Parts: sequence; structure tokens; C-alpha cells
Amino acid sequence: MSTSFRDECGVFGVFGDSEAANLTYLGLHALQHRGQEGAGIAASDGSLIRTRRGLGLVGDVFSADHLAELPGTMAIGHVRYSTAGGSSPLNVQPFTVRYRDGQVSVAHNGNLVNAVELKAELEARGSIFNTTSDTEVILHLIAGSPQSTFVNRLVDALARVSGAYSLVVMTGDTLVAVRDPMGFRPLVLGKRGDAWVVCSETCALSLIDGELVREVEPGEMVIIDADGLQSLRPFPEQPRRACIFEHIYFARPDSEVFGESVYSQRVALGRLLAEEHPVDADVVVPVPDSGIPGALGFAQRSGIQFQVGLLRSRYVGRTFIEPSQQIRDFGVKLKLSPLHGVLRGKRVVVVDDSIVRGTTSRKIVRMLRQAGAAEVHLRITAPPTTGGCYYGVDTPNREELIAHRMDVAQICAHLGADSLGYLSLEGLRTVQGAGRGGYCEACFSGDYPIAPPQVGEDEVQLPLFQGNSQEN
Amino acid sequence: MSTSFRDECGVFGVFGDSEAANLTYLGLHALQHRGQEGAGIAASDGSLIRTRRGLGLVGDVFSADHLAELPGTMAIGHVRYSTAGGSSPLNVQPFTVRYRDGQVSVAHNGNLVNAVELKAELEARGSIFNTTSDTEVILHLIAGSPQSTFVNRLVDALARVSGAYSLVVMTGDTLVAVRDPMGFRPLVLGKRGDAWVVCSETCALSLIDGELVREVEPGEMVIIDADGLQSLRPFPEQPRRACIFEHIYFARPDSEVFGESVYSQRVALGRLLAEEHPVDADVVVPVPDSGIPGALGFAQRSGIQFQVGLLRSRYVGRTFIEPSQQIRDFGVKLKLSPLHGVLRGKRVVVVDDSIVRGTTSRKIVRMLRQAGAAEVHLRITAPPTTGGCYYGVDTPNREELIAHRMDVAQICAHLGADSLGYLSLEGLRTVQGAGRGGYCEACFSGDYPIAPPQVGEDEVQLPLFQGNSQEN
Amino acid sequence: MSTSFRDECGVFGVFGDSEAANLTYLGLHALQHRGQEGAGIAASDGSLIRTRRGLGLVGDVFSADHLAELPGTMAIGHVRYSTAGGSSPLNVQPFTVRYRDGQVSVAHNGNLVNAVELKAELEARGSIFNTTSDTEVILHLIAGSPQSTFVNRLVDALARVSGAYSLVVMTGDTLVAVRDPMGFRPLVLGKRGDAWVVCSETCALSLIDGELVREVEPGEMVIIDADGLQSLRPFPEQPRRACIFEHIYFARPDSEVFGESVYSQRVALGRLLAEEHPVDADVVVPVPDSGIPGALGFAQRSGIQFQVGLLRSRYVGRTFIEPSQQIRDFGVKLKLSPLHGVLRGKRVVVVDDSIVRGTTSRKIVRMLRQAGAAEVHLRITAPPTTGGCYYGVDTPNREELIAHRMDVAQICAHLGADSLGYLSLEGLRTVQGAGRGGYCEACFSGDYPIAPPQVGEDEVQLPLFQGNSQEN
Amino acid sequence: MSTSFRDECGVFGVFGDSEAANLTYLGLHALQHRGQEGAGIAASDGSLIRTRRGLGLVGDVFSADHLAELPGTMAIGHVRYSTAGGSSPLNVQPFTVRYRDGQVSVAHNGNLVNAVELKAELEARGSIFNTTSDTEVILHLIAGSPQSTFVNRLVDALARVSGAYSLVVMTGDTLVAVRDPMGFRPLVLGKRGDAWVVCSETCALSLIDGELVREVEPGEMVIIDADGLQSLRPFPEQPRRACIFEHIYFARPDSEVFGESVYSQRVALGRLLAEEHPVDADVVVPVPDSGIPGALGFAQRSGIQFQVGLLRSRYVGRTFIEPSQQIRDFGVKLKLSPLHGVLRGKRVVVVDDSIVRGTTSRKIVRMLRQAGAAEVHLRITAPPTTGGCYYGVDTPNREELIAHRMDVAQICAHLGADSLGYLSLEGLRTVQGAGRGGYCEACFSGDYPIAPPQVGEDEVQLPLFQGNSQEN
Repeated sequence: MSTSFRDECGVFGVFGDSEAANLTYLGLHALQHRGQEGAGIAASDGSLIRTRRGLGLVGDVFSADHLAELPGTMAIGHVRYSTAGGSSPLNVQPFTVRYRDGQVSVAHNGNLVNAVELKAELEARGSIFNTTSDTEVILHLIAGSPQSTFVNRLVDALARVSGAYSLVVMTGDTLVAVRDPMGFRPLVLGKRGDAWVVCSETCALSLIDGELVREVEPGEMVIIDADGLQSLRPFPEQPRRACIFEHIYFARPDSEVFGESVYSQRVALGRLLAEEHPVDADVVVPVPDSGIPGALGFAQRSGIQFQVGLLRSRYVGRTFIEPSQQIRDFGVKLKLSPLHGVLRGKRVVVVDDSIVRGTTSRKIVRMLRQAGAAEVHLRITAPPTTGGCYYGVDTPNREELIAHRMDVAQICAHLGADSLGYLSLEGLRTVQGAGRGGYCEACFSGDYPIAPPQVGEDEVQLPLFQGNSQEN
Repeated sequence: MSTSFRDECGVFGVFGDSEAANLTYLGLHALQHRGQEGAGIAASDGSLIRTRRGLGLVGDVFSADHLAELPGTMAIGHVRYSTAGGSSPLNVQPFTVRYRDGQVSVAHNGNLVNAVELKAELEARGSIFNTTSDTEVILHLIAGSPQSTFVNRLVDALARVSGAYSLVVMTGDTLVAVRDPMGFRPLVLGKRGDAWVVCSETCALSLIDGELVREVEPGEMVIIDADGLQSLRPFPEQPRRACIFEHIYFARPDSEVFGESVYSQRVALGRLLAEEHPVDADVVVPVPDSGIPGALGFAQRSGIQFQVGLLRSRYVGRTFIEPSQQIRDFGVKLKLSPLHGVLRGKRVVVVDDSIVRGTTSRKIVRMLRQAGAAEVHLRITAPPTTGGCYYGVDTPNREELIAHRMDVAQICAHLGADSLGYLSLEGLRTVQGAGRGGYCEACFSGDYPIAPPQVGEDEVQLPLFQGNSQEN
Repeated sequence: MSTSFRDECGVFGVFGDSEAANLTYLGLHALQHRGQEGAGIAASDGSLIRTRRGLGLVGDVFSADHLAELPGTMAIGHVRYSTAGGSSPLNVQPFTVRYRDGQVSVAHNGNLVNAVELKAELEARGSIFNTTSDTEVILHLIAGSPQSTFVNRLVDALARVSGAYSLVVMTGDTLVAVRDPMGFRPLVLGKRGDAWVVCSETCALSLIDGELVREVEPGEMVIIDADGLQSLRPFPEQPRRACIFEHIYFARPDSEVFGESVYSQRVALGRLLAEEHPVDADVVVPVPDSGIPGALGFAQRSGIQFQVGLLRSRYVGRTFIEPSQQIRDFGVKLKLSPLHGVLRGKRVVVVDDSIVRGTTSRKIVRMLRQAGAAEVHLRITAPPTTGGCYYGVDTPNREELIAHRMDVAQICAHLGADSLGYLSLEGLRTVQGAGRGGYCEACFSGDYPIAPPQVGEDEVQLPLFQGNSQEN
Repeated sequence: MSTSFRDECGVFGVFGDSEAANLTYLGLHALQHRGQEGAGIAASDGSLIRTRRGLGLVGDVFSADHLAELPGTMAIGHVRYSTAGGSSPLNVQPFTVRYRDGQVSVAHNGNLVNAVELKAELEARGSIFNTTSDTEVILHLIAGSPQSTFVNRLVDALARVSGAYSLVVMTGDTLVAVRDPMGFRPLVLGKRGDAWVVCSETCALSLIDGELVREVEPGEMVIIDADGLQSLRPFPEQPRRACIFEHIYFARPDSEVFGESVYSQRVALGRLLAEEHPVDADVVVPVPDSGIPGALGFAQRSGIQFQVGLLRSRYVGRTFIEPSQQIRDFGVKLKLSPLHGVLRGKRVVVVDDSIVRGTTSRKIVRMLRQAGAAEVHLRITAPPTTGGCYYGVDTPNREELIAHRMDVAQICAHLGADSLGYLSLEGLRTVQGAGRGGYCEACFSGDYPIAPPQVGEDEVQLPLFQGNSQEN
């Protein structure tokens, strides 16, 4: 898949380790795929929360000196993909503010559906907003709550919001992890020795030699302080609606997400895809890296040989300029290059996890043909993406989604492929497992678990609050 | 004088020029002496206020590209000296926030005496604070005002605050400049062609080919929008209490401040000092740069020859490390070097504008003696500094002020000078002029126009609000 | 394989395109895997050669402005892995100097076996050396040649050197590409429209939409100027000794090197390895990225299922600090993470392309076992590495090579694997093809085509010339 | 004076102090006025010379870490103003190279008149050149000398060159300081405890608490090693021709140069100027900073009051962009601002040290008039600059010198001044002192002590050797 879909964030928190900031730094490195544009860490030494945030990769934002300036045994961290709000450092989390009871720091993964209304209400009460992030709304609600304890204030605040959130919140002495009642975004609880860890995906636990304890359950609030861990369920129970796209694309293949191995799920999707859309071909190649497990599954089931047909550059990054306008399919070539020996004269099945606008897929089909492929059969390990996401995934406007504008035959013609097969929604559900159930598939089915904002669809795709600042 | 006294800020605003951000950039360059640690510009194109801020000198924070990204015909700017709050980019102004009625941006020079109380009250109402600056209090008060127009909200907010402020505030279409009723800090109004300009000192007007119209008067609020300029006097009238230290040290000698030429005032102080503390000597030398006008005045009146006896390095800046511990008076040597030919065997009068802790003055006396001065007579163009400032000047704790702990004879002995003479408070008043009157001399007289905060004196010297963030 | 083996460089040159510097920039991006520590481009506009070089990745060294400052229709470029000479910018190529006939610029991939002797001889004649690179020796030999044309001087100079070199040399109006008589390092000739291109690997041609014409042959000197292309064979013919390690590890899989598809060769090595060292197992996993083709070949031949068992991080780079000493196998974990679902309870064949010191392989075996592998069978698609390289591959001292100190059984025990199988030297030769013949296999066989320097082996592994400079 | 004249360099060396690199760093800071575009330090620990160089101010090029990486008890350093050769880091000194006998490092202040010829001769012998600096010629001559000791090689090399040089040269164990036989550029010898120091000006000694021993005499070679200091006079004696411009403009006022106090000389020039060109006026103001001593002297002699009439900004540096084209005399306003109170309605004498092209002087005259000056009388403490310099001062082409094209009356009219007076050449000689004699005044008199190169004058104003490289 192209890079058009982006999950907004990854979060991490640790309580009870003298290397709290260092572990958070490592955890954010493991979660870097969830957000590459900014990173931040807030650490508490029991009396003061210190925060460092910056634009760039985790490794660029923090030096050893910076980490040394974040003492304490508690820390939270955040990696962020900048959606429409723009690349302002003000929008990089954690947000640390001071309110009536002292400092509070928050790292948020998700999207609030009623942020615009809440913001209007807060502004009417005299609140000021420094960022364009809906996370700031949560801080205002906490600070404005009439409740007398921090936990109750947080419950009070979250009772007001609607949407998707996996939050890690820290005061001077307490770490709280909360997942929204429908559990859209992942969040897991782990241990590393005596220290507690919370993070978006298990891969962050693996890197720091931690052990998975369990998921933070949908609707659960986990409170960790000097007295240990306490679990609350302060919200009315609701059906789980875990984001199916975490399995299809976002999560790292070595993570366990929503209790399932991401890699195994993706291989299974590829296997079922081979059943649903068989084709007579010579070779199966993935669009790397995200298409690899699906292509392996497709090859296993179909018996067609798996090969590396496209090589992904290790050096594609944001600092590379594109100096030439003379070269066809320039951008995609910087990232992917074809292996002529594998493709020449072959009937090729190419497996990807999704098609968003179709632009990249079209270039890939052309690249395969130019490399000599006799036939190009495109197989997608998910149903057509027909709708946008309001729960924390950065999708383009619905009008830009090719599957919103065209049917499969039209898409196939547009991309120039010999055949195109999407996994069926039923197939997807089969793989996810009837037993577990409870996924949000709105981007495929149009069945939105929480009604999108009343305002025009296009509008909510724009930044909720227009930007205040560009900083260096 | 050493660099121990620092004014907190300089402000600038322009309305009605298509090069608004560029002119603000130039204006801030001219005001750079009022704050060298951070700079920011906010510009409005009528619909959106864009802000860029950063740590460092104006020339380092802004590139041509950055300025091009700040379109519009209105802009405000700020240069800042970081007081105890620490060098966080979050504390660099202008602060631009969004509230009920849209965006508002503010640049503030001064200090609020009741910020701690106001902040407690605001937090009790649920406000959250992102910075450690009292400027944020003003924004909360504006946003929380029940008034229905922006100007009335601003009046409402400022009616609540007590202390020193020269403010430049901008909404999407209106520029407002306000000076507190006692007029502690300077603020002037000028024109450049059809555009209006407001700024801390006239030197910023000179650089951009603007003309001085008049001071913004103490207690005056100047409102500039498409309909032109309007002047309000919304606050009860109070006696003027302009900061005498602007004349003695802060302001640039080429500025006119509080209606007087800074340079001429300083020369006059030196003349009177020569009358009050005559001495039989061979040469008068200034501590550069701030002691130059006073030394000229002293030389003119005394008839003793003026010479350059200490050379100030042009290359002293923040990026110079101090690699050696083996050299005596190392730090001051990087900044000042003696001219042996001028000093050797001479009875030297050395003129400075103030003595704060006495550390630098002691090194200067030693440096002059090592360069061969036969006698060293120290003359100060101000009375002894015996008290701290609560109105926007960054002074050390009173206990650190040498004139709080010692009398003149003790100070002279401590510094190792042959004689020491301070200008008398009466002398200072004479020079300032009976007619104009109305200066705050609290740091010399202990007569504070507005009572300092009730909390312990030491405490208010610390950052009002403990720091939230360190950013890069 | 770990990153212990490194090829020293990649080279690129273009003649006859108005976007010469831009194309070189792209070509170097495609060759980035051959050297990640520095990059440079020299461009000639016919009268002046301009050069820009710097430490870092290609994308970091060059901005659009930099490329615009390199006008002309000819350019050469270089990417470099810093061997023992240290990361001095002085050692980054191309080297551009002025001599009797004007400017000359050179980019070199290889290693001269007699550089120490030549340098001593040149110094005895009064030469001075600015760098620690043996490339500078070539420049001195060119400048000191009694021949009267540039091409003859270059021939004269190269007749003096012994060792491996693929050189791209540029004067103000001529581009020359030369490969040493044994052809150790690769070099190909291509076209892009009317422009000629020379580069280390065909992948650079692919990126810029160029076409492969042929290899620059061992011992061939290709001269390109306004009159077209001319081929000389100025050196006595010698048997080809192409570096087998290009096929095993260095070259990009999508390149054709020495006339063969790198990817296909690697798959074939894996197939033969499965024949030579069969094992009863459940899953074949590669050490990514370089072990992937070999693992595919092993899986194809053995019928054991291929899976992704280790995930390689996309974000491992040089700016990541290692903050914690508490975590086992820390470094390798930042780079590789295991997929528990694939490995748990399984008999695992793990395929890599080489074992150098054994340090990383040992950590990988441990990582697989901790992830639950029931058995770990390590298979290497090359023979044991028993000797160092003197022809441009950066190998550790022979004493550090585990296969120099231990036999296969000892290595297997040391690594903690259940079994270990290396491809036989005969097997390797079979795959390379009897027909083509002519590979240097000295690191496996000890049969060095050119005698290593007489001085102690350890010594030549050290920098030939001790460092002059560290620059910023 | 404007910044059109620039001395090329400052040099520093220390032998026998464990903080050699730190002291050199400080010494270069004191010499920064002699070159602001690049700085470098080479330090020897007895076995290896390490070098760090970079573009920028001393404080920007070196961090504490960098200095720690330059161990040893010997070091040399250099600050450089980039003349026409361009701002390539390759041209930043010291140059450290390896030749027959090991490493040698050199820092050079001056200009060789026969560099072009020597370079041609060296190239004919096969030498290659990495830089566009004539200093590289000296290194080639050393390396090519048939002599058997380093000192004899250096003597041999310098016997070949003609022109101005003050050199500091270092091998692994020896520090050599040499001044050309005519002694164009300054060089002094000092001690700091047991360590020997050599440097361009005494101000560097003052900063590090060193003591002046004496000048390195014209034609003297001082050799310092473990056996102590030795003085040679290896060249035929010649009349001294010290650069008069060091006294007039270049040197720091607190330095003693050529045995005289720079400040006192400048005051004396101003006094004599008042005698030669008296004027009836109200106030004498300097063009800061370099015009201050002359203006003081003029005021003392004339009895006209000295005042600060133009303020020099402390914040003018290279990183300031000039965003506006709308403002008259923009550039000079960023640097200088008028004090209206001093100038308004006054007859003003403005004193500067030279007029080069006239551009800046014209803007200053206009600025003074706009500030209200009734009359503007320009006085220059030197004769008209009618010729270029070939001995290390960066002057524009003779055609650009206003005094080459116009007589005094024409210049006065062009600048818009009411009167203009230059010090006479006889007056200048009087101040320099008949006793000491021996100054080069060629830029005023046209009497060149060493014949300029035969090639066209314009040509030698261009870089001697065209640039090889632009680096980052």
C-alpha cells in the first residue's frame, strides 16, 4: 500500500523504573511506524514533570543529554503522524500543562468525534486553545471537572467525549491508561521486572525485554501509583469495535494486537484471498513491506512460487529531494525497484494490502510491465476502501478514494492490471474470527459504530481547529 | 554595568503594510538589546494568524523563507530575555491562541504583580496553563470575560491585573497597544507612510524610516483597524511611574524614551556625577558600552581627559565556551580588555551605570590595576541599587545586591577601588527634571508604587509558575 | 549477516546531460548501500569543476541549492564507507585537484595493494598528502607522469598501481572509466538518451531510466568526450578475478553484477545449500534483508515453508543512541525483532549469507530460542570466511574472524545452534558457473590473486596513512 | 571605515602547555577581528597532529568536545578572512599534511607575490593542489626541498618565496615562527609560565595572561622544541616594511604592534589631522568602532566636543537577512544609527580611518544630514587610498578605489560632505616616527617595496588559483 493511510499515533508509559525516560525512548523507537513526524517524552521525578518534544524521528529528537535531563521513575511518550493540523511543534505530544492540582501530562492515540462541539462549549466558558489537537480538549475537561480527585476528574472528562482514544495520562505520582469503551485503538499492559508498562503494541514490550500481561480492555481505566495497579470500568459497557485496519496495515507484524498475531492474520488473509480470487500465474510477489505476509499466504494456498519482485529502498526518508522531472514514476522508483530477472516474461500476481487513491498502484503495475511481466494480477488482502475513518486513521476525503468512485472492473482498467481481486468483507470477517467478533469495518462497510460529526464530511477531514502556530 | 540587570522584553507591532512581517523583523532587530534569548513574530492576513517563534537572536530565528510564510498586512513581534522561567521555546512570545471569537496574539513587556493570585483564581475555575509566563494569565482573562467585544474583553482583563505592562495585541483584523496606568515600561506610536507602528523604543522606528507620532500614554489603549486609530482611556488615572532604569541602562542611547533623549540624559548624569564626586585624576574611562555617555559627561564637566581604557569584544556571544580554569578573571577578559598605554601610571576615573552584585566591578578594578593604573576611582551614574524590581526588570534577589548588604565605604573596600561615588537620588531626580516627574525609583528608594506580592520576596523572584516543558 | 563486512564505495559518472549533477545525485541514492558515511559530487561546466562533499547519507549532504551550484553536463559522484581512516570529511570523494594541465576529479572504488610503497616513493620525491586515502596516490601519479596527454598520464599512473580499482575520472571535458585488469570490483556502462553513464551497479541505471550497454571490462579504459566513446585496453591481459562477495552480500539484489542477476544467484545459492545441508524442520526464515533470497531458495528446494521470522526495523540509523545497558542483546534488538507466532515450538532453519565474528549470529540464535524456537538450524549461503580482503572490502583482522579460529562444529557450539551448515566452496563455484569462471574467492580459499602487502597483515588492515584531520 | 579592507588572517602558536588547544582557542578569539570567516586548530601530542577547521567564528567552529579531541602540549591556530578564493572549508587553515618526514602543519598570515610562478613550476614537476591558497605552495616547497632537516627545508622553501608572511609551522615536536625579511605582517613572541607563545598581536597574549617577550623580528626564524628556543636569521637582511595599515585600521586598539601602542598611534593621527585640517564646528563624532581613537585625538587637539553621534549595533552578523528593499540606506542602518539629539542643528566633524569605494561614507554623510546635522565635515586619519595591496590586505581593484578615480574635491562632492580632509602622507610619517621608520605605505604612495606580479593587476586580485571545491 502507498503511504496514504496513516495511523495518528503511538503511546507508551512506564511506572517504577529508574530508567523511565530511557525505556520510553526505546518504546517509542519500536512504535515509530505509528508516527514519524514528531516524538515527545514527559518524565516525572515525583515533584516536577519535565517534557521534551520535537519534530522528526525519535532518534533525531532525543540526544543522550536530553534523556539525562528527564529524570524520574515515571514517564510517558508519544509518536505522531501529523494529520491536517500541520507540522507545528506545538501539536507534538505529550502535552504537559499545569492546572489547579498541579501538572498533568497526556499522550493520546485516537480521534474524538465530538471535539468540535466540546471545543465550542469550552470556548463559550472562556477556554483558550494553544494547539489544533483534540487532545487539548481532554485537558480542558479534566481541569474544568467539579470532581475532587484526579481519577474522578479524568472519568468525568472522558464521559463527555465520544470517539476513539487510547490514552496514557500522568500526574506527578500516578500513571493512568484508558481505552475507549469500543476499544477502537490498541493498548496493552505489560511488566518489566517490577515496573509497569503500557503501550500501543506488544512490539514495544519486546524491545525492552518486557512481558505482556494483557490488553487494557475496552472501557477500562488502569491506575498505577505507589499502591500498585487498580482497574476501573467507569463507563457504560458497549460492544467492542476494534479497528480492523490495525490488522490489515498499521500494526507491526511482530505485534500481537487485539489478542491476535498480526503476522498470522495477514498470512491468513492472503490464503483466503487465493481461494476467493485464484489465478493461473508463475510467480507471487508482494508490494513490500506491508504486502509480504499476504503474498506468502497467497503463495502457500495457490502453490504459485513466492519471489521478491520489488525491492524497497532502505534509504527513503524525508530529507531526500526530488531533483529531476525527467524520469517517469520518479517518486515510486526512489522507494521501489523491480527485479527484472524475477519478472521478465512471467505472469505475476502482486499482493498489496489496500488501494487508496490508486496513484501508487498504477505506477507499480506500470513498473512491473516495464520490467517485462507478461501479465499483472493485482490482489488486495482487504475489501475496497469506500469510506473515510473518524476514529484516528488519517484517510483522504471520500471523494479521493478510488473505490468510492469506481467499481472493481473500472479500477482494474484504470490501474492497467490484467485482473484485480479484493478480499470479500465476508472473507475478512472469517479470518478475524466469528468468536472474537467486534471489529470496526466502517471504511469497508460504511457501518460507522459512532455517528460521524453532523458537519459536512469534508470539513471534519480538515483540521478541527485551524492552526495557530508554526515554530522552529 | 555587568549583564546582571535585564529588561524582559521588547515589543513591536505594525498595521497596514504589505511587508508587515519584514518590518517587524527589522523592528525586532533594533530592539534586540531588550531581549536576546528568543524572538517571535505573528502575522495576520485577515483570516489566519500565523506565528513563528524560536530561541536565539532575531537573525537566527528567522530566514527569508520563514518571513515569506508570514503573509499579511498586520504583524506583532517580541524579543525576550529569559528570566527564571528557563529557556523553553513555549515561553517565547507572541502567544497566539484560539478562543471563542477566533485567534488572538499577544506580545507583552512588563510584569504583573498579582499574577500568582490571578492564576490561582483561574485554575480554580478550571483553566490550564501551558507556559510559565504571566502573559498567559492575560489571555485567560480575555477569553473568560463576559464582555461581548474584543476591546471590552481586553479592558475587562486588564482591569483585573496589577503591575507593569506595555502590550501589543492582535486579532485577525485589529491591532491594540496598551500601556499600564502608571506607564512603567515605554511604548511609542509611529507612522511609516500610511502604516501605523507601535514599539518599545524609537530606535525601531528609525531603522524602518518611520516617524515618531507620540508616546502611547500611561493608561492609554490605542486601537487600530480598518477604520483608523482610536484612543481610549479605560482605566482610572494614576500618577506616572516610568522606569528610571530605562534611562540609566536599558534603552538604546539613540532612542527617545518617555519623551527624553536617552543619550543626553546619560551624559547629563555623568556631568552631575562629576559635580557630586569630583576627583583629582588623569583620565576618565567608561565601562563600555553602557558607561560611555556618563563618562563623556563626567569628562566634560571635570575637564579630565576622556579615553578608551577598556575595549569591549565584538565577538562575545552565547556560543563561546570557556575552556580554561587557569586564567584569572577569565570571563570578564573575554568581554573586556584593558589598554595599557592609556592606563599605565595614570590616576583613572572609571564610570559605570550601576553595581549589582559587585562581582564584575571588582574584576574591572583589578584589571585596571594590573594594567598599571596608579589609582582607580569608580563613579556610578545612579544611586546604590538596594532593592529588587517587580515591574519587569530582572534583578537578583535583594540579598545578592551588594548595596543592600554594605554601605558605600564597605563596597569601595570590597571592590578594591581608591574611591567610589554614586550619584545621589536627588541628583538623579534633578537630571530627570522636576517638570516631567513621575519616575519609579523603587530599586534606589525602596518606595514601590505598587505593593509587591504578599508572598515572600524571594518567592516572587523565582518563576511564578514552575516550568512545564523543555523543548527543542 | 551483520554489518561487519562493508564494501568501500560506489561510483557514478555521467557525460552529456544538462542535469548531470541531479542524475548523479539519484545514482548515488541507488548506490547508497555501498557506502553510507559520506557522499560527494563533482560537476564540470567545461571550464571549472565544482565539488561538494560531506559526511552523511546522500540525502543529507545535498540540498536543491547545492545541486543548483553544480552546473554542467558532466559529473561524477561517490558514496563511501569509512574504513579505519576515520570519518574525516577530507577523505570523502570525489577528490578534485589542480595540476599542470588543469583540474582533475576522481572517484575510486577499490583498494591498492602497493599504496604504502608508492606513497613512500612519492614522498621521497617531495609529494605531500592531504588525506589518508590511497586514491590520493593515483592523483600524484597522474600529475607526476612524464606523458603529455591526460589519458596517457592516467595509463602511466595505473600501470604503477597494483590491486583493485573501479575508477571514474573527470577532467574539464573528458570522462574516463577504468577497471583494473582482474576486474575485482564491478563497473558498468549505460546510456540515458544521448548521455553516457558509468556506475558500480545496474540499479543506478534503473533508477534514472537508463539502459545497460555492457560491463566496463576488466582492464578496459573507456574514454568519453565530445568526440564520443573510445575504448582502450592499455594493460597486459590478466585472468578475471571478480569479487564473489558482490554476489553473496554487497550488491543490491535488483542489480546485474558481472553479467549475472544478483537475486537469482542468491536464490540458487540457497537451493544448493538445501541440497548440501538438508535438515528436518518446520520453517525456513531469513536473516533480513540480505538472507532473504537464500532463504527462499532453501525453502523452494527443501519444501519447508518460508516465513518471516525476524523483522528488520526501518528506522535503524546512525542517530539512534543506545541509552540502556540493562537489556540483553540490545543492539541487535533495535535492528531485528522476532515473530513469536512463527517461531514458537517450531524447528527453525535460519538462513544468512555469512558469519564474520559470530557476535551477531549468536545473538540471533538466542533471540530465536527466546521466541520459542524448538530447534535452530543455521545455514550460510557461503563457505566459512577464513581470510581478510585486500581488494576493497572492509573485513576485520583475520584473528577476529570466527572461522579462522574455530572449525564448523566449534562455531556451531559457540553460536548455540542445533546445527550449522556452510555452503561448500565447490558448491559456490558450481553456482557461479564454470563457464564464466574467474572469481576471487580469497576470503574463503586463502588463494589471493595478488599477493597481499609484505608488511604485517595487521598493519595493512590499519589505515594506510595515519589521519591528518578531523573537520566539521 | 566600511568593511571593505580586510586583513587575511591571524595566527597563534603555543609550545609546552598541557592546555595547548584551549589556549589556542582563546588566542584565536582575541584575534577574531583579523578573520571572521573560518578558524582552525592543529594540536600535536608528540606522535600525531590532529586538526579541526571550519567556516564560522571561533566560538561556532569549536565545542568543548572538539577541543578535548585535540590533545597535546603544542598547538597552532588560524583565523581567516576569505578573500576571492571563496568560502571553501578546504581553504581554512592550519593545513596539515603528511610528507617524507611525517606530518607538518602550517598557519600563514600574508601573501606571496610570486605564488603564481612557483605554482606553475611546482605543477611542472608534478605537484597537485587541493586548495586555492598560496600557503599550499609553501608546503610543496618544504616537501620538495633536498635539505635533510625540517628547519633547513623550511629555510630552503622560504628562500624561494617573495612577499609577506608571518608563519607558524608545527611538526610533531617542533614549533617554528617566521616573519618575512621586510616584516610586513606583525608577529610577537611571548611566554605564559614556562610555555612559549607566538601570535599576530599582543591582545592574544593579554587574554591568556601571557607576557610579551618581544617581536619576532623581520627575517627572524624562531625554533622552539624540547631543547628550548633558538633564533635564526637565515635570510639576507632587508629594510623593514611593516604594514602601516595595521596601525591605521587592522590591529586591535589594545594591541602593541611593531612596538607601538595601536590606540596611541590612532589618537596621535587624529590630533595631527586636526592640525592639518581644522574646521569650525560644534561636535566631533567618530564612525564607530575604528574611528573612535582618531576622533578623540581630533577633539583633544581642536577643542571641539567629542560626542557619540553614530551608534554601532552589537547584533550585526552574517546570519541577518535583509528582507526589505523599501528602506533607504538599509544596510548601513542595520549597522549604524544616528543620535538625533547630538546631531540636530550641529556642525559635525565625522572622523573615519579611510575611504575605500566611498559607498558607505556617502551613506553616512546622508544619514548625518537626515538626522539634522547643519554641516558635515569628513576627516580621514590616513592619506587617500590610491593603490591596492599585494602583501596580505584584501583591497578591491584599484579601479574601485574612489581616490584612484577622483581628487579630494571630487570625492567631497561625491560624498556630499561640506568639507573633506585626509591626513597627509608626511603627517602619517611624522606620527609613525622617523626613528622607527620602515613602513610600507604603498597603498597611499604607490611605492611598492616588492614589485607586484608581472601579470595584469586585475588578475592578481582574482584568486591566484581557481577554486576546486565547495564543501559543507
